[in-house]
Amino acid sequence: MSQLTIRTAEIDDAATILHFVRELAIYEKAEDEVVATESSIKATMFNENSGVHGLICEHQGQAIGFCVYFYNYSTWLAKPGLYLEDLYVSPEHRGIGAGVLLLRRLANIALDKGCGRFEWSCLDWNKASRDFYQALGAKSQDEWVGYRMEGKTLLNFASQ
Amino acid sequence: MSQLTIRTAEIDDAATILHFVRELAIYEKAEDEVVATESSIKATMFNENSGVHGLICEHQGQAIGFCVYFYNYSTWLAKPGLYLEDLYVSPEHRGIGAGVLLLRRLANIALDKGCGRFEWSCLDWNKASRDFYQALGAKSQDEWVGYRMEGKTLLNFASQ
Repeated sequence: MSQLTIRTAEIDDAATILHFVRELAIYEKAEDEVVATESSIKATMFNENSGVHGLICEHQGQAIGFCVYFYNYSTWLAKPGLYLEDLYVSPEHRGIGAGVLLLRRLANIALDKGCGRFEWSCLDWNKASRDFYQALGAKSQDEWVGYRMEGKTLLNFASQ
Repeated sequence: MSQLTIRTAEIDDAATILHFVRELAIYEKAEDEVVATESSIKATMFNENSGVHGLICEHQGQAIGFCVYFYNYSTWLAKPGLYLEDLYVSPEHRGIGAGVLLLRRLANIALDKGCGRFEWSCLDWNKASRDFYQALGAKSQDEWVGYRMEGKTLLNFASQ
């Protein structure tokens, strides 16, 4: 692990982030859903009001993985939480601890920021990741189902 | 619907919000998990860096429902999303459109803020709410499972 370093993502990392986002989407069988561009990532993630943060994991100076996170909020706890939106390590650099290192850095950021929870989502068929998260002690939130309104449905509902 | 109004929640609404949070938690069979207090809500939700927002629905000047929301982020879209954390209307004031009015206001806020998605979560056994969300055109995200690390597990993992 000694050759692995983690640093905060900066605006000049937008192309690297887009590369990893696309690789992750291919893995998640959703490549067609990536409409982000380098410039839209720069504009929406790297402005001071975005509330969105990224980390880059490097191995011998080369970016091999990343994560994107933001803060959510629990009304039960009256505390923020850290929500991990994306975590990805290039396949050729797996097995040297980059994923755990990113997760541990996020856990420390969560505690530093006074968060009560560290949360993320996983595709239900991704057994390898689910087993990994379970082994870390994370609990699956099986009782909760996400809902999403978007596109024309959102426009129509808003204008009624 | 003409007697229903919606306004932005202010710090003086913390007690009202806590009341609704507790009522919602009882409905969700999780009352014991509410450790929030009026002062912790004031401190964590109503500070300018919280990123957390609330709306209060009033009927003839009386608060009958609320919602709490924040912004998440989609790397696929490179856009923020609006995430609804809590939505609740007192049982004795249901059926007059308060829930839909709050949801529609949130949909408009989402569009005004350039969000690509309006999202929330629902307990899987809450069939009445799920049918309602489905009828509005929202899509359930059945393929995704949430994970959570908290408490001693989070502390231990961070310190390894």
